[in-house]
Amino acid sequence: MKFETAPPRGMKDLLPREVELRDRAAATILATYRKYGFRRIETPALENLGLLLSSEGGENEKLVFKVLKRGAKLESVATLREDDLADLGLRFDLTVPLARYYAHNRAELPDPFKAIQIGPVWRAERPQKGRFRQFTQCDIDILGVASEVAEIELILATAEALIELGLERPQIRLNDRRLLAAIAAQCGFAGPRQGDVFVTLDKLDKIGREGVERELRAVGHDARAIERLFTLVLPSKDERDPVAALAQLAETIPAVREPAETLRTIVRTIEAEAGPRYGIAFDPTLVRGMGYYTGPIFEATCEGYGASVAGGGRYDRMIGRLLGEDVPACGFSIGFERVVSILEAKSGLVRPDRDRVALIFERGDGPGEVIAAANRLRSRGRAVSLTLKRKNLARQLDDLARDGFGSYAIFRAGAGAPEVKPLALRTPEAKRADA
Amino acid sequence: MKFETAPPRGMKDLLPREVELRDRAAATILATYRKYGFRRIETPALENLGLLLSSEGGENEKLVFKVLKRGAKLESVATLREDDLADLGLRFDLTVPLARYYAHNRAELPDPFKAIQIGPVWRAERPQKGRFRQFTQCDIDILGVASEVAEIELILATAEALIELGLERPQIRLNDRRLLAAIAAQCGFAGPRQGDVFVTLDKLDKIGREGVERELRAVGHDARAIERLFTLVLPSKDERDPVAALAQLAETIPAVREPAETLRTIVRTIEAEAGPRYGIAFDPTLVRGMGYYTGPIFEATCEGYGASVAGGGRYDRMIGRLLGEDVPACGFSIGFERVVSILEAKSGLVRPDRDRVALIFERGDGPGEVIAAANRLRSRGRAVSLTLKRKNLARQLDDLARDGFGSYAIFRAGAGAPEVKPLALRTPEAKRADA
Repeated sequence: MKFETAPPRGMKDLLPREVELRDRAAATILATYRKYGFRRIETPALENLGLLLSSEGGENEKLVFKVLKRGAKLESVATLREDDLADLGLRFDLTVPLARYYAHNRAELPDPFKAIQIGPVWRAERPQKGRFRQFTQCDIDILGVASEVAEIELILATAEALIELGLERPQIRLNDRRLLAAIAAQCGFAGPRQGDVFVTLDKLDKIGREGVERELRAVGHDARAIERLFTLVLPSKDERDPVAALAQLAETIPAVREPAETLRTIVRTIEAEAGPRYGIAFDPTLVRGMGYYTGPIFEATCEGYGASVAGGGRYDRMIGRLLGEDVPACGFSIGFERVVSILEAKSGLVRPDRDRVALIFERGDGPGEVIAAANRLRSRGRAVSLTLKRKNLARQLDDLARDGFGSYAIFRAGAGAPEVKPLALRTPEAKRADA
Repeated sequence: MKFETAPPRGMKDLLPREVELRDRAAATILATYRKYGFRRIETPALENLGLLLSSEGGENEKLVFKVLKRGAKLESVATLREDDLADLGLRFDLTVPLARYYAHNRAELPDPFKAIQIGPVWRAERPQKGRFRQFTQCDIDILGVASEVAEIELILATAEALIELGLERPQIRLNDRRLLAAIAAQCGFAGPRQGDVFVTLDKLDKIGREGVERELRAVGHDARAIERLFTLVLPSKDERDPVAALAQLAETIPAVREPAETLRTIVRTIEAEAGPRYGIAFDPTLVRGMGYYTGPIFEATCEGYGASVAGGGRYDRMIGRLLGEDVPACGFSIGFERVVSILEAKSGLVRPDRDRVALIFERGDGPGEVIAAANRLRSRGRAVSLTLKRKNLARQLDDLARDGFGSYAIFRAGAGAPEVKPLALRTPEAKRADA
């Protein structure tokens, strides 16, 4: 029998050097988050389908991998309707499971609850370059804090993590859903249709002022409302001092005052802690897709990369839907796959490691002696791999160096501890001489 | 709308203290495995159903969570047959995905290939105490090594990992599938029915000699063959010197000689490296369930725990089915969930940590100042959580101590770096005085 050996469509096998880069990145992020008092939790990969499909998850709800009912449950199904056939689904993000987790386990959790989640999520998207059907998300959330202290801690921890990862000069963009709503109302957009104003405004950086205007006109929005929107929004976007931009807006629109006050506290505190290492800006055109945000929203970008590397915001009403009682909540999520691909582009995957030793032996050597020699090196803190000698030792050493071994040793029977020598890729000249 | 907030049936939410114990255990195991030259890889959680359902996975194949086809693929389905409705499944172990991974990525992998896998697997088992439908496995495998050096390295690394975890005096039990086959043939059991002889023999420790005899007679096996089986097997099981037991068997059954020679080398090498820290024994009644084993098989037990904590063996023909070319392969898997529950029973979950500081502030304190104080402590290596002061401070401190905080500090405006004080659970007397 012959099998397809590729992983399922849109999914990915990770090679050792890829896992090692990811593990280093995850360890860096986790260490920073722990310093800020966050602790890791885990939820199952599967959730009840009813929860996933009514979670304000927007487009993502359409992308759920659904799990077939089993045994008698499936036998009693009479139709081919998807909803009857499946009862579980793979999670499409880590926020919906967190809300369920908190509602279920609240009695055993500290207050406030500061959670780290890092783990895979699944979306049945049309596979395309750089986008996979299983990928890792890395979220921090603070549940139970109504004040802007939560936003500030999330932003500080995430910015520190990005810096620790080696990304250049992170820049935080900040806005507030209440402020967006106040602007839309002030411009005269009809309440129920404010949503598509935001969706279109979100594209300003991509399609420009004309593009936004065209799209809003096409769905029937009033030309004067659109004009007012630009008059209100564009000056603040261009204003380099976020506190001044907020004051300007608050002067024009009274309903903006309260959210503007919150954002000002966030900006001032972050600026004081950040110094020159990273920046924060107010951006009234930042929207973020999810339906569940209720207050401040934010994204992080890094110098040299157009797309954002992290995003988050406040979602004070999501847990209430499950618990029957609102709990203030706020989260920031690092785009782990994007960060990993930036790190890979920056510094490559393979890091030769002096402490990784290839111990080369021959077929006739006694396994007991070879292993004793390896264990002598291991007891000195080396990571030792036994490797059978190949015909062309020079080429074998090259292969080992390419694989990240920083040292090697040749086993000799009765010679005591083998001598460890540094290993490096040969120059092309040396290779030619050998050939 | 009201939702069920429990995780799906048979699955589990992990609290912070549970994740922390698991993370410590995983870090210990991984550090040991890395010393032995193993490197971590990852495969997707989902595999094509065709692969999972034809993998000699035994009973596990019946427990696959199957994923519903999507979009047009599902629309073209006309029947309610499971095979037509689903195209992907969640992996039920890490060995089948490893074989596919190796067949697919071989050109990019070192030779020999020493893999660590730690990750969740899913089985739709009837939920019962201590058994879950999502659980973590932790495997090491060596691909490309035909000699017993592979078995020795796997056993050494696993025994070391168990010791590093703090488990008492690990004991390795060793047998060989070829040796089992030779014994069965020598006793006169018919070749095609040797399988159920092994399955029954595997229960010897549980149901005793009479139980094994009764079961084998019940399915029609010859009474003399059964008698001969006990005559051959029981003396070696009782013999405390494994090398002597192997020599005894090899003298009686010529076909045993070659596997006995392999086992003897393994035993002698392990004994030399283990010293008094752990032991190895030959057990001709060790069987292990999987159909795919072809040579040595082994299990590890720890003092004070009846069930095994790790199991593995050689499976030289599994990869050939995918690659069209046999590749020698051998693996050892730690029962991660069992190890975690042993560690939890031994030492409890909560470890008070001096470096975890709760910084207590009041509602009126300025967020900027509170956060600056927290960051001063963080820059000295402390993990700091901001906590709003509650009415009853003594009870709040107790709750914090129970949650693993080893220190606390009270924020005072304008007082510079807050003073960090150790935190411990109050005695019952102190509580009474307070009440």
